[in-house]
Amino acid sequence: MGYDAVYDKLKDECGVFGIWGLGELEEAANFTYLGLHALQHRGQESAGIVSTDGETLHVHRDMGLVADIFDAGVIARLRGGAAIGHVRYSTTGASQLKNVQPLAVQYAAGAVAVAHNGNLVNADVLRAELEAQGSIFSSSTDTEVIVHLMARARPAGAAPAEQLASAVRQALSRVAGAYSLLFLTPRAMVGVRDPMGFRPLVLGKLKGHWVLASETTALDLIEAEYVREVAPGELVVIDERGLRSERLFPDARPPARLGRCVFEHIYFARPDSILFGQSVYSARHAFGKRLAIEHPVPADLVVPVPDSGVPAAIGYAEQSGIPFAMGLVRSHYVGRTFIEPSQQIRHFGVKLKLNALRDVLRDKRVIVVDDSVVRGTTSRKIVKMIRAAGAAEVHLRISSPPTAWPCYYGIDTPTRQELIASTHDELQIATYVTADSLGYLSLDGLYAALGEERSTFCDACFSGEYLVDFPRKGTAAPSLRVVGA
Amino acid sequence: MGYDAVYDKLKDECGVFGIWGLGELEEAANFTYLGLHALQHRGQESAGIVSTDGETLHVHRDMGLVADIFDAGVIARLRGGAAIGHVRYSTTGASQLKNVQPLAVQYAAGAVAVAHNGNLVNADVLRAELEAQGSIFSSSTDTEVIVHLMARARPAGAAPAEQLASAVRQALSRVAGAYSLLFLTPRAMVGVRDPMGFRPLVLGKLKGHWVLASETTALDLIEAEYVREVAPGELVVIDERGLRSERLFPDARPPARLGRCVFEHIYFARPDSILFGQSVYSARHAFGKRLAIEHPVPADLVVPVPDSGVPAAIGYAEQSGIPFAMGLVRSHYVGRTFIEPSQQIRHFGVKLKLNALRDVLRDKRVIVVDDSVVRGTTSRKIVKMIRAAGAAEVHLRISSPPTAWPCYYGIDTPTRQELIASTHDELQIATYVTADSLGYLSLDGLYAALGEERSTFCDACFSGEYLVDFPRKGTAAPSLRVVGA
Amino acid sequence: MGYDAVYDKLKDECGVFGIWGLGELEEAANFTYLGLHALQHRGQESAGIVSTDGETLHVHRDMGLVADIFDAGVIARLRGGAAIGHVRYSTTGASQLKNVQPLAVQYAAGAVAVAHNGNLVNADVLRAELEAQGSIFSSSTDTEVIVHLMARARPAGAAPAEQLASAVRQALSRVAGAYSLLFLTPRAMVGVRDPMGFRPLVLGKLKGHWVLASETTALDLIEAEYVREVAPGELVVIDERGLRSERLFPDARPPARLGRCVFEHIYFARPDSILFGQSVYSARHAFGKRLAIEHPVPADLVVPVPDSGVPAAIGYAEQSGIPFAMGLVRSHYVGRTFIEPSQQIRHFGVKLKLNALRDVLRDKRVIVVDDSVVRGTTSRKIVKMIRAAGAAEVHLRISSPPTAWPCYYGIDTPTRQELIASTHDELQIATYVTADSLGYLSLDGLYAALGEERSTFCDACFSGEYLVDFPRKGTAAPSLRVVGA
Amino acid sequence: MGYDAVYDKLKDECGVFGIWGLGELEEAANFTYLGLHALQHRGQESAGIVSTDGETLHVHRDMGLVADIFDAGVIARLRGGAAIGHVRYSTTGASQLKNVQPLAVQYAAGAVAVAHNGNLVNADVLRAELEAQGSIFSSSTDTEVIVHLMARARPAGAAPAEQLASAVRQALSRVAGAYSLLFLTPRAMVGVRDPMGFRPLVLGKLKGHWVLASETTALDLIEAEYVREVAPGELVVIDERGLRSERLFPDARPPARLGRCVFEHIYFARPDSILFGQSVYSARHAFGKRLAIEHPVPADLVVPVPDSGVPAAIGYAEQSGIPFAMGLVRSHYVGRTFIEPSQQIRHFGVKLKLNALRDVLRDKRVIVVDDSVVRGTTSRKIVKMIRAAGAAEVHLRISSPPTAWPCYYGIDTPTRQELIASTHDELQIATYVTADSLGYLSLDGLYAALGEERSTFCDACFSGEYLVDFPRKGTAAPSLRVVGA
Repeated sequence: MGYDAVYDKLKDECGVFGIWGLGELEEAANFTYLGLHALQHRGQESAGIVSTDGETLHVHRDMGLVADIFDAGVIARLRGGAAIGHVRYSTTGASQLKNVQPLAVQYAAGAVAVAHNGNLVNADVLRAELEAQGSIFSSSTDTEVIVHLMARARPAGAAPAEQLASAVRQALSRVAGAYSLLFLTPRAMVGVRDPMGFRPLVLGKLKGHWVLASETTALDLIEAEYVREVAPGELVVIDERGLRSERLFPDARPPARLGRCVFEHIYFARPDSILFGQSVYSARHAFGKRLAIEHPVPADLVVPVPDSGVPAAIGYAEQSGIPFAMGLVRSHYVGRTFIEPSQQIRHFGVKLKLNALRDVLRDKRVIVVDDSVVRGTTSRKIVKMIRAAGAAEVHLRISSPPTAWPCYYGIDTPTRQELIASTHDELQIATYVTADSLGYLSLDGLYAALGEERSTFCDACFSGEYLVDFPRKGTAAPSLRVVGA
Repeated sequence: MGYDAVYDKLKDECGVFGIWGLGELEEAANFTYLGLHALQHRGQESAGIVSTDGETLHVHRDMGLVADIFDAGVIARLRGGAAIGHVRYSTTGASQLKNVQPLAVQYAAGAVAVAHNGNLVNADVLRAELEAQGSIFSSSTDTEVIVHLMARARPAGAAPAEQLASAVRQALSRVAGAYSLLFLTPRAMVGVRDPMGFRPLVLGKLKGHWVLASETTALDLIEAEYVREVAPGELVVIDERGLRSERLFPDARPPARLGRCVFEHIYFARPDSILFGQSVYSARHAFGKRLAIEHPVPADLVVPVPDSGVPAAIGYAEQSGIPFAMGLVRSHYVGRTFIEPSQQIRHFGVKLKLNALRDVLRDKRVIVVDDSVVRGTTSRKIVKMIRAAGAAEVHLRISSPPTAWPCYYGIDTPTRQELIASTHDELQIATYVTADSLGYLSLDGLYAALGEERSTFCDACFSGEYLVDFPRKGTAAPSLRVVGA
Repeated sequence: MGYDAVYDKLKDECGVFGIWGLGELEEAANFTYLGLHALQHRGQESAGIVSTDGETLHVHRDMGLVADIFDAGVIARLRGGAAIGHVRYSTTGASQLKNVQPLAVQYAAGAVAVAHNGNLVNADVLRAELEAQGSIFSSSTDTEVIVHLMARARPAGAAPAEQLASAVRQALSRVAGAYSLLFLTPRAMVGVRDPMGFRPLVLGKLKGHWVLASETTALDLIEAEYVREVAPGELVVIDERGLRSERLFPDARPPARLGRCVFEHIYFARPDSILFGQSVYSARHAFGKRLAIEHPVPADLVVPVPDSGVPAAIGYAEQSGIPFAMGLVRSHYVGRTFIEPSQQIRHFGVKLKLNALRDVLRDKRVIVVDDSVVRGTTSRKIVKMIRAAGAAEVHLRISSPPTAWPCYYGIDTPTRQELIASTHDELQIATYVTADSLGYLSLDGLYAALGEERSTFCDACFSGEYLVDFPRKGTAAPSLRVVGA
Repeated sequence: MGYDAVYDKLKDECGVFGIWGLGELEEAANFTYLGLHALQHRGQESAGIVSTDGETLHVHRDMGLVADIFDAGVIARLRGGAAIGHVRYSTTGASQLKNVQPLAVQYAAGAVAVAHNGNLVNADVLRAELEAQGSIFSSSTDTEVIVHLMARARPAGAAPAEQLASAVRQALSRVAGAYSLLFLTPRAMVGVRDPMGFRPLVLGKLKGHWVLASETTALDLIEAEYVREVAPGELVVIDERGLRSERLFPDARPPARLGRCVFEHIYFARPDSILFGQSVYSARHAFGKRLAIEHPVPADLVVPVPDSGVPAAIGYAEQSGIPFAMGLVRSHYVGRTFIEPSQQIRHFGVKLKLNALRDVLRDKRVIVVDDSVVRGTTSRKIVKMIRAAGAAEVHLRISSPPTAWPCYYGIDTPTRQELIASTHDELQIATYVTADSLGYLSLDGLYAALGEERSTFCDACFSGEYLVDFPRKGTAAPSLRVVGA
């Protein structure tokens, strides 16, 4: 999950959205649907919404794009003034178990739904422990572990919101890893972010109603006002009495450092988001400027790999004074399945998405700016495509350091062996991708451009410095498979 | 669930099918698909198949008819030599939770799938107890209770089949009610029937491979040989070593009497099934003959309400010497949703299904034979339709006793108040349905015609004599709803 | 087209329905939809409705069953107070051209839609002539020829209805063959039946609004009153001024005899229809009685091949005094595509539809009554199935004469060589189908039972006496194929 | 047709593609499918492919995106080594008649398919004339007129290709207007471009097989080599003997000037196309530079309206020295139907597509570059969105002259009254869209930037100088409507 093999990009697994206006708002599901639409880049393979009318949770989930899963009839049946939603990536084809979220179950305390962005590193251990105690699992998601832990929590609190918050706290005290979570019961909503703050979560307000979302783009679309980030280690409880902010673990010492995912700034988040308090576009633009300082090269054009490489390429061009040009055009009609002719066509995957502009590139010394390289296969195709369009030289510039380590906090990466930067140095990579030169942004340069302390971010994918220990991945293959529609 | 309001018929809730040929058979899912097709009359609203290739359970379930849910691609992906399947009714429109079966989960002992026909009378109590112990529920089916009990069973047995059988035994020792159940793990299959034998379950053999099915029609279609019924209180274990028959509760005294559902003979089962060792067609034919003896009336024609009233009407005609005629024609293109014009058309539901033959019925004294009357609304429409076609007299004959009590063993009936026979005597019912006379088959006559001891059957729906105690239905409304497809 | 290879039955090609209530009725399309539903047995592979609001024709057509093609939204957009509709069979898989009706085009006189039941014997000749004059064809239906002829008719008449009637008359004066046709323009409707009256067409009235339909079942469902048949050679014109009945060709001498399709009585029509002024059920019942007189045999049971053989079997049983039994049960869940296992199952097609009742048939001498035999393959399977169920003897009785000649008037039959009765005598057929004896109803017996003059019917499929000459089928293969959805 | 009301953009109506490799190529339909994919921006609402195997034309057409209409099964059934395809826009919702192309019919000379990009100005007149002669019309496209004219052409030529070319010539000699057309018969293909060359058409070669396409992007995707444009007034005939280039009207004097659509360069074509011999990207880039010279303004940022405004904005930024920034982000998940909440959200259409980057735009003087303004409604929303994001000033720059006149040559434009530039001067428009200043590229500047003679282009939409006379649009409303799926 989370790796796009065709375009050689890591992918964030999920996006979450929630809105609370019980008793006042009539269309919580509709706003959630729009919010999910604005978070679609965080997960294009399934989506779900759970709403509450104060008594009952109403659930709809399916594989596919948000715009295809929901129609006016479904939205109308998702009754009530509060809702949470989720978009996710999953493996293509037959998926393992039914992992579409939000998860919704009934347990002793009533009904609850959960939407999760992140990854628990001790889920396998907890799952084995829970199964030994008699729990049954219907999915292979680590999120189901959280619900089981909640079901085994001591009852506490009188009001529904306090009951929910207590169960959430007790459950999360057992788990380790990355999580931005939304919980919904018929009478309360809870949002929470792990103490190191790996995954983003923001708080907004729509005409007095609280909104929670993975990124600010979801606020923008529904014209909600951006209030602030949910802080690492913060738990917000929302019910009829309003919003209370609490510490997730009041008795625990806060972690010595934070682990905000720096790759969100590099690639995952939408450029129009305010992420960890900062403009994503501006961050990428600054990466590009810094990259120009670290890896200058005489050239005629700076060309981005669209769309994610555009802000850094603009920054590189500005810094270097070399003209910026959209020398690669991206098609926006790329469907998921393509019928490939057996004859004569090579490099099909990338060709469907990108085309090189011969008249722009011919005889030019071209600097190509991309945000990251995972396996290198696509970079190689892009460099060759540009050279085939007549470029005299092709210099590849990457607006992040070499991706050499897998992520265990929410981004499923290829194995270490497949990450080209884990086994090859820059010169070898340049040779492989057939570039005349190759330059990666340095880790120091990344933080300098961002204007942030490295100690507040996780960069394990570049540095191998993992902030939360993780056990060896369980080797037991799941023995349940859902044969897809 | 289980009551067809449009046609005023009770409906059996489910059908189950299983086949075991691991290592030898290549198409267990395909045979299961055909078996479900032959059991489709037992459940038309959802279906599912779980297969095993010896390592992994492969699952496919959906709402709809068997022929629409499965296609060649899905069947091919349901790999392996053993499989179980399920067809079920459920409430129309938005269904409560996701109740489609077989249920498939993972727990400490591995993966297991369950297909259930029947109803547990103590499911609510057990569910509350399980939730108090930390179990979470994803569906509202009583079947999920069984799986939770299995997950909390003591491990026992070395071989997969023995482990499964032990868990099944421990779980079922806690439940009360009606059940014919099939269980499948990657390496074993178990079939079991409750000690009173409420619901049918038969054993067959296809070229050496064991087959389990709710009715023999499923054996006929795949050309499997009918071996025998699974006995009340019998547990059959099937794995690579073959089939072992065991008593479900070896230490328990067998019940003093059996509770085989007599309504299966009256309406639920297909006429070509061998049910509880006897031909359903022949039973219905005998009911009709007996009905003619108990409630004779001078008339010109005996007309069945098709299709279920046909065998009894033939029997009635034979016994009485009055000619048999198909005076009502049934359309076989009735879809589930119909667009009704706002103007001018009354009694639409039944009109779409039945049409009366004016030329056959005109000026005739007509005996109409139906198998049962639930609320009486449809009988009224049918009598009026026949009279509108010109019949001189309309005498309604029902080939079962008055349905006056709800069923708690697998057939969800309308509340007692809605059962016309619980609050009206035969004369009042005759008046309501506008029939010139009305006759129900007597309870004694029913068993006399069947040639069986009443003490081996359950007839609570007629007599109110419930064989297994049941608690008052829990009043807690479920607080999770799945918004339709 | 029109031959069901799986069940070895000829099939009527089409059904038509029209209703006129312009300015008064709000739901003409909805009534048409219901009418088509009641005519679904005449064509299950595509359907269409064209409505008029007085200005514009609104069209919807598609492949599939009526209940799947139309939903409330489509019906609502088919605005207006008058409409015509059509159901049809077509070849399975990729169909040749887009032949779904009603055909709707625009020509000099405006827009017109046509729904056709029947077959023109000189369509190829006319088509060649029209193409030579510059006409282009979008379909391979003979119906398109009629529209082209109308487009080349001399304008005549002042009112829209008269213009339409004149164009229809001029066009039909050129064609030969069988046709029951409905035409609709924005302001008028015309119904017409060919001079020999091959195909049925009836006139009804719904609360003052005129209705035209292939069979009376369509009137029954919408509670319209049956008025009379449209007479052979009659043209009815309906517009705001009401209905006028005219002779189609006022100057032509009426044909010496009629050609009403006797096979409609034998198999095509629904048993609850009044066809050519007579009850279909009663006709079939009479065929069965007569068959018992012509071909008696000592036996224990009379068993119909359901559903079409039922009325004749009842008649046979009554006449012979031998008990009637539903010894074959038919499944009503048969979908069109089935996934067949590669192993072990023979005679699959028929097995999905029919099952033999072992307990009813065992050791019995059985008379099986079917309505017709086309290629004999299915009869053979049925006889074998009954014998496998334990029958001591199997005597096949067919309630029509041997089908030995292809139909050119609306029923596409297999080639002569494939009709078993064209190359085998009754003894040979009995041997092939493995029956102990075989008896066909005689042609004289057919008409005696029907109580009608043979000179008013077409029985070319039995006698080879073709009432309208036809040219050799054109050998030019069509060079346009629509690749199905 | 052709106007996108949500985004206030004119839209080209169609794209065409053809490939010829009969007897050698196995996958003509698959290459056509890919070609249509690369032309999808020219028509997103329906698509079709017609292939030939040398004997029969195989047709598949439907509403929707290319990737949804065709699957591997359909492509496989579109057999043969040559094919043509078409993508088109059409009105949303219920479309008038069934206008999906390629049109495929049978006439005296056999089967023929046509794909058309353009618009005939005398179609209504010709249609009336043809109807008067007895032609029937199944669609409302002007393309059907061409086929009718071909059906009435004098037979000429021995070989299939010559017959086709002759019929095409005779038909086109009657029509006036804009057309780039592809014709396919079982044995030949013809491509033709009207004498003034309004719409583009290029010739390419794929491993020796000829390819025709609206734009070179289609060649790029399948890795075909770009050979040259089909010249205005050129007819190319392709069959087993190869390609012959001929003059469409050998006896006619070539027109004094050409009418190549300059708006293709401004907006319609993809930036990576070589159009009329020139790079579209470079042309737009040059428009932007020229625009900076004509309408300079002091500012902090140049921001494009993505995606079409990007190249001009880059040019503007380069020329002016003002930094370029992607201050508006475009979502690529915009579906066609959106469920809008009734409450609280304004400007929904544009918000779903575009979001303004607050951190980039805050307190900046912003130059927004767009390619054109049609009604002005969307420009107004964009200017307001940028100002709401905190911009200090918003200056709108349009890289084309004011769009003040409707197009009659293939682009359906709003009526003159709706074109804001036809009734308002630039100052008024600036006031309406709430911009601080507004500047349009001048017509002279447009051609200067393009480096081409104005006499070889049509710019009627800017100048009102129509190169081909057109009759007043017929007022007769079509009286046939297809009620959409």
